[in-house]
Amino acid sequence: MIAAADLAARLAGLEKIGLGESGTTRLPWTAEDEAAGEWFEAQAASCGLRAERDPAGNRWAVPNTPSPWWAVGSHTDSVRAGGRFDGALGVAAGFEVAARSDRPVAVLSFADEEGARYNTPTFGSRALAGRLDVADVLERSDDDGVRMADALAAAGVDPGALPLAQAWLERLAGFVELHIDQSRDLAAAGAPAGAVRSLAARTRLALELHGRADHAGTTRMDERSDALAAAAAVIVCAVDLAAADPDLVVTPSRLLVEPNAFSTVPSRVRLWLDARGPTDEALDRWRHTLASDAAESTAAARVRLDIAVASRSPAVEFDPRVRAALGTALGHADELVCFAGHDAGILAPLRPAGMVLVRNPTGISHSPDEEVDLADAAVAAQAVLGALEALA
Amino acid sequence: MIAAADLAARLAGLEKIGLGESGTTRLPWTAEDEAAGEWFEAQAASCGLRAERDPAGNRWAVPNTPSPWWAVGSHTDSVRAGGRFDGALGVAAGFEVAARSDRPVAVLSFADEEGARYNTPTFGSRALAGRLDVADVLERSDDDGVRMADALAAAGVDPGALPLAQAWLERLAGFVELHIDQSRDLAAAGAPAGAVRSLAARTRLALELHGRADHAGTTRMDERSDALAAAAAVIVCAVDLAAADPDLVVTPSRLLVEPNAFSTVPSRVRLWLDARGPTDEALDRWRHTLASDAAESTAAARVRLDIAVASRSPAVEFDPRVRAALGTALGHADELVCFAGHDAGILAPLRPAGMVLVRNPTGISHSPDEEVDLADAAVAAQAVLGALEALA
Repeated sequence: MIAAADLAARLAGLEKIGLGESGTTRLPWTAEDEAAGEWFEAQAASCGLRAERDPAGNRWAVPNTPSPWWAVGSHTDSVRAGGRFDGALGVAAGFEVAARSDRPVAVLSFADEEGARYNTPTFGSRALAGRLDVADVLERSDDDGVRMADALAAAGVDPGALPLAQAWLERLAGFVELHIDQSRDLAAAGAPAGAVRSLAARTRLALELHGRADHAGTTRMDERSDALAAAAAVIVCAVDLAAADPDLVVTPSRLLVEPNAFSTVPSRVRLWLDARGPTDEALDRWRHTLASDAAESTAAARVRLDIAVASRSPAVEFDPRVRAALGTALGHADELVCFAGHDAGILAPLRPAGMVLVRNPTGISHSPDEEVDLADAAVAAQAVLGALEALA
Repeated sequence: MIAAADLAARLAGLEKIGLGESGTTRLPWTAEDEAAGEWFEAQAASCGLRAERDPAGNRWAVPNTPSPWWAVGSHTDSVRAGGRFDGALGVAAGFEVAARSDRPVAVLSFADEEGARYNTPTFGSRALAGRLDVADVLERSDDDGVRMADALAAAGVDPGALPLAQAWLERLAGFVELHIDQSRDLAAAGAPAGAVRSLAARTRLALELHGRADHAGTTRMDERSDALAAAAAVIVCAVDLAAADPDLVVTPSRLLVEPNAFSTVPSRVRLWLDARGPTDEALDRWRHTLASDAAESTAAARVRLDIAVASRSPAVEFDPRVRAALGTALGHADELVCFAGHDAGILAPLRPAGMVLVRNPTGISHSPDEEVDLADAAVAAQAVLGALEALA
């Protein structure tokens, strides 16, 4: 049986990488990312697996049998000031499962799952699935003005070869991801682990509000075009609409103001809204109502509003056979709807895929306040190991 | 008579300093600030005045007669991406007045009037008036983390000697500031220039909202502590309260979000509100209502709110004798209430002081869209010259 101590031993080398006072920060294509890659290679060697890197920077640890293989894994990158387990736990557990399985099992660590640097969540799995707009992402710049193409090249990934990553999908028979629960659903149910039925629909809207820079004291309220005051009204509208629908969650996650001076009316605001719902239809309804209400309020404030759909992921239902195998191995058929995006969801339309979540008593993630009892994680890993007997 | 061409010639050397694509940026204690100081010294020499710098970095051009002197001037620093005339016009006009006056007249260019780098508006005149909290401002850091004490030292101003600036006030008999109108009041009145009766009361509030970083998808709306959603509600409240009172103007001028990531609930927001009103009482009423409403809305959002009064300037009435002299010289007694802060307002409680504004057809300031016809500025400068005959 897989034990908590086995997982703790595998995590030990990884969890100190990027760990600072405010949490874990392992952004993609950085020195921390590279250190996590070295940890991955050492783990692969310890399991007798061969470490490889595909053209999108995804890391594979593969057995010495002909492909395709079933794979287990997740990611090792993090958000800024994130937690120790989000992603990392799934990769560590993948190695423990692969080491113990009597079937040939690969371990996968996807590149840039969080998208924290370039707003490119599930970058690696999208590249593998042929669902990445390569030209678009390569031109993006991070907060320091570094273009993604340059960051990739510096990390040893040839930006020109990105489209070749999808050929590697042929090596994959199916994928199971293990991840911490990012809600309190499992804690509330009193279960250490659970299989996921589906991923919620998600969208990220990028809004730009164009006002006019004026003196904060001398411009009458009815003559100014205050981009921040207008953005605040849009945020209140977006959040109120979500609060009125128990199935929706909406987050004004990121906002940048120009000129952001002490005594100037803000001339420009960029605002990103993250929205999720159980169905594509619920999300579309929210977006249309918001667009209409926000158009009205910003026009009244003499501010121009542009709304772009920066990303959109339809709801995903996981493979019934994988779900059944996980349910059998876990000993219960209760299934979860997960409101986070995951690499397993990107692969699901193309390969049999599934997910198992591990209880997180705080329900918090993307923060060092996330919590996992590794005994619960061992239950989940053991279930993945058992499910692969039926699947691989 | 002072002509537009005289002012254009004086401004020519100054207006190219810090001029970029998005406007004029001459922040205090920078290379641009130093270049403006060299321009000041050249202008002083051209008028037969002696250039000096007081312990707060204020620049003086003084005549060869015993002090105290009446002085004319304004400032040469700017906000980020500001206009060419805000401040600069008053210093240039000061030299033209001093050069032509048959009385001994000094020219003053106050340091860091805009406070754009350290949130220290009217820094130089406050130091001169003994109204600067020296220990507080020296510890402030700019956006790059440079402490004000270090910035001053690098610019040749000894931070330890700041308190000595107020001894220089003894050299000043009175002060007249010439400045562009930052409203459309003069344009609406069809007047090229006008004297100012009073400055509005002003305050700047610094708010901190403390929520909790959570995953944007998996945290239920009723369990999250979203600092940005709460800040948006506070902004809407602050602006709505001002819009309901025709005498108030309120600006949510600056806002910083943490972690400002794409898929994390914002954990912390810092927000600055700039508020102005004709009387101290009107402003206090607004602040108390806001504090009470915001305490309620943030508590309901599970967000902690701290409100600090970052700065507070009572309404200021200018000296009746200066106002009368300016009115006589201008040929009309219509007076303005100015909603911007000015160095003349800081000096007014201690010395006879006054202001004359120059028509600005756009009414816009703190932006390159400000506009001045130098023929109007010449009318204002000629009025200052005339008023000094009665005053100095």
